[in-house]
Amino acid sequence: MNPLDPFFKPKSVALIGAAHTETKLGGVVLRNLLKFRGKVYPINPKYPELMGIKSYPSVSDIPEPVDLAIILRPSSEAPAVLKELGDRARGILIMSSGFAETGETALQAEVQRLGKELGVRILGPNCMGVYNPHHKLDTFFLPSSRLQRPKKGNVSVISQSGAILSCLLSTVKEANTGISKAVGYGNAADITESDLYEYLANDRKTSVVVSYLESVIDGRRFVESAKALSHKKSLIILKAGKGSSGQAAAFSHTGRLAGRYEVFHAIVRQFGIREAMDFDELMDATKALSYQGPSGGKRVCIITNGGGSGVLAADECMRQGLEATGLSAGKKERLGHIFPNFFGINNPVDLTAQVRDEDYALALRELREDYDGFVVIALPNVLGITERLAELLKEAKAAINKPIVSHIAPSRITARLRVRLEKARIPVYPSPERAVKGLRVLLE
Amino acid sequence: MNPLDPFFKPKSVALIGAAHTETKLGGVVLRNLLKFRGKVYPINPKYPELMGIKSYPSVSDIPEPVDLAIILRPSSEAPAVLKELGDRARGILIMSSGFAETGETALQAEVQRLGKELGVRILGPNCMGVYNPHHKLDTFFLPSSRLQRPKKGNVSVISQSGAILSCLLSTVKEANTGISKAVGYGNAADITESDLYEYLANDRKTSVVVSYLESVIDGRRFVESAKALSHKKSLIILKAGKGSSGQAAAFSHTGRLAGRYEVFHAIVRQFGIREAMDFDELMDATKALSYQGPSGGKRVCIITNGGGSGVLAADECMRQGLEATGLSAGKKERLGHIFPNFFGINNPVDLTAQVRDEDYALALRELREDYDGFVVIALPNVLGITERLAELLKEAKAAINKPIVSHIAPSRITARLRVRLEKARIPVYPSPERAVKGLRVLLE
Repeated sequence: MNPLDPFFKPKSVALIGAAHTETKLGGVVLRNLLKFRGKVYPINPKYPELMGIKSYPSVSDIPEPVDLAIILRPSSEAPAVLKELGDRARGILIMSSGFAETGETALQAEVQRLGKELGVRILGPNCMGVYNPHHKLDTFFLPSSRLQRPKKGNVSVISQSGAILSCLLSTVKEANTGISKAVGYGNAADITESDLYEYLANDRKTSVVVSYLESVIDGRRFVESAKALSHKKSLIILKAGKGSSGQAAAFSHTGRLAGRYEVFHAIVRQFGIREAMDFDELMDATKALSYQGPSGGKRVCIITNGGGSGVLAADECMRQGLEATGLSAGKKERLGHIFPNFFGINNPVDLTAQVRDEDYALALRELREDYDGFVVIALPNVLGITERLAELLKEAKAAINKPIVSHIAPSRITARLRVRLEKARIPVYPSPERAVKGLRVLLE
Repeated sequence: MNPLDPFFKPKSVALIGAAHTETKLGGVVLRNLLKFRGKVYPINPKYPELMGIKSYPSVSDIPEPVDLAIILRPSSEAPAVLKELGDRARGILIMSSGFAETGETALQAEVQRLGKELGVRILGPNCMGVYNPHHKLDTFFLPSSRLQRPKKGNVSVISQSGAILSCLLSTVKEANTGISKAVGYGNAADITESDLYEYLANDRKTSVVVSYLESVIDGRRFVESAKALSHKKSLIILKAGKGSSGQAAAFSHTGRLAGRYEVFHAIVRQFGIREAMDFDELMDATKALSYQGPSGGKRVCIITNGGGSGVLAADECMRQGLEATGLSAGKKERLGHIFPNFFGINNPVDLTAQVRDEDYALALRELREDYDGFVVIALPNVLGITERLAELLKEAKAAINKPIVSHIAPSRITARLRVRLEKARIPVYPSPERAVKGLRVLLE
């Protein structure tokens, strides 16, 4: 049994600081825990019952030791609660804030010391906790009326920030993708990114890991665990706290030193670990990796019906170190026979405003051997593009078996086209440049 | 009378190549021209009537000279049509493709020569033409069922690419902003970006100019006209065709040499002309400038209820040369009295998951004198944030009178909150970084 299992697959959960109403965080967490199929023990001395289940005055009143104890009481009470818990919990999740991030370093150190003394692992403090849809476990203090949870899937998200975690989950949900494990680990007083990397490396339900971090606790262990994880799964990291103001912000957020970003950047680069430079890149990469497996190569073909969008995609290829090399003479001649003479037979292939859906599939099939990945750009504000495009691209993708991403410009049919393309596991991006960035993640 | 007036405010328009059905581009353009309140003359030898109005067999059959003649016939016919038009048109818009962009350089040169000979200005070829909602003029070959037109407003968009033009218009529409003039000028055989800059500098209905270009025809004139324009209005430029593949793509798109990007970049920087680096930056800047006037300064205050989002915003401030400097000792003390002790009293101000709407307004009012611009970040997946936030921020904005932008993270109330904030002219961005980039445009 892995010491982190109680956090992901508990059989029983105690919530210290449960509340009777969802206007309090302790009520929101309890409501979310009610979906859990194991045993739930709310702790609150004022009520015999909370949201229809029996409540207990204190942790010592719970009839059995629990797998996971969640603490949601003011930070100053945490040491007393830990002592009271003693050996009655196999894992402890401290959600409360008011530790190192607000200057209470001694309090956080005491909690760390107590955890070691009791031989129990601690997640947090100052964190969101865990969402594991495969186990119906949801410890978040965000109501599902506000944050819709994604379905089960293969993406694990681990984040020091609850804000970023929730934004990533919204994106995953929106992209019709699913979650394996989602973890907000906050101040990382005990369990760090490295523990989570090691755990997820061996989690069969996870194939993509998205990691947002502000601080690295142990540089050597971080490198080892990130390397090992990225050999087995697709890992993408966003490191925040890059400059002095960001570092100051990170310090008041999680009470951890962000460290010199240049060092971090050089190290992940050296070991070939994927890094997103900002929030949008992290989101876009998550989408790409959750839809398609990465493969090799640098040669990119852009197929568009909008000339300018094609030029912008070509510019981004250059910035991303990808090669939008021209068509071979043979392929130029061949496409010249297939397409009307006003099409741009080059790379980008420009299908112009007089495009029909099937022209994309034709171009993809003809050029499948010549490139490593494809960017399909469709501006559906011409009548020649219809929702049928999704079906044709799906077929072409199956025949080609290489990474394909798309940018669908805004129009009245874009939303429907997008849903159909993403069901076919072709990610759709809101700009030519972001589509290219999405593809780059798949070509690393 | 300005020689470009016939393109923007014609009293009469002839369409050479009008069609009877919207499955043809000539039918789409005619349908869009029917909204025009001046006289429309469709030219098509096969039909006596098109879409309910009298059609003419040839241009020589039109009863009067026209202000604007639109040519939508195969490129090879363009010289003959120009000769037939003679002095019967005050401005000529050639929409057809098949000129320099497909290697037909001689044909384009002949059209240029004929225009000069006839003493008439030419827009295009290979272009979308003009949308001027103030004049109800719409020459686009995109049906309004696919590309919804924005309302009247103060933003002019000029683009060598029809694709980018249409994407920009969708964004402007989506952002509830309005258009003064929109122009797709394609191969720029005669009318160039400089002509349009000069025209818009004196256009009272325009206060923001968004320019997408792939090539600069006359470098000296470009610099002069861009400088002059940016002294009078907010100008933002996106230059595409930055690297060799992008430049090749631009050449096959508009038949123009993109030129060395480094030279372009150094020049616009030297003269303080705003440049967007990619499509998203151009869109984001357009939104910011259409909502709020630019003002000076570098000091940025970030007010957030999500710690990680605040850190990312601070990182982006650094990249953008903005200063997210810490709070003064006095203000720290003051806010420490107002807010609960678990709030992060710093820059970013972290209102945490226990935020209430009014905390944002409180922080803004307290810090109004200390900073030049504000980034408001709200994660409405906590119950303390409601749609009322829009009203409170609107009031705070009026009291502060400095640039404010926002990032509203995804949640069930985000769409409604966004509409209300943007009605109050506070731009909403989909990530912390993009909000900061939007603010930077307002602080230049």
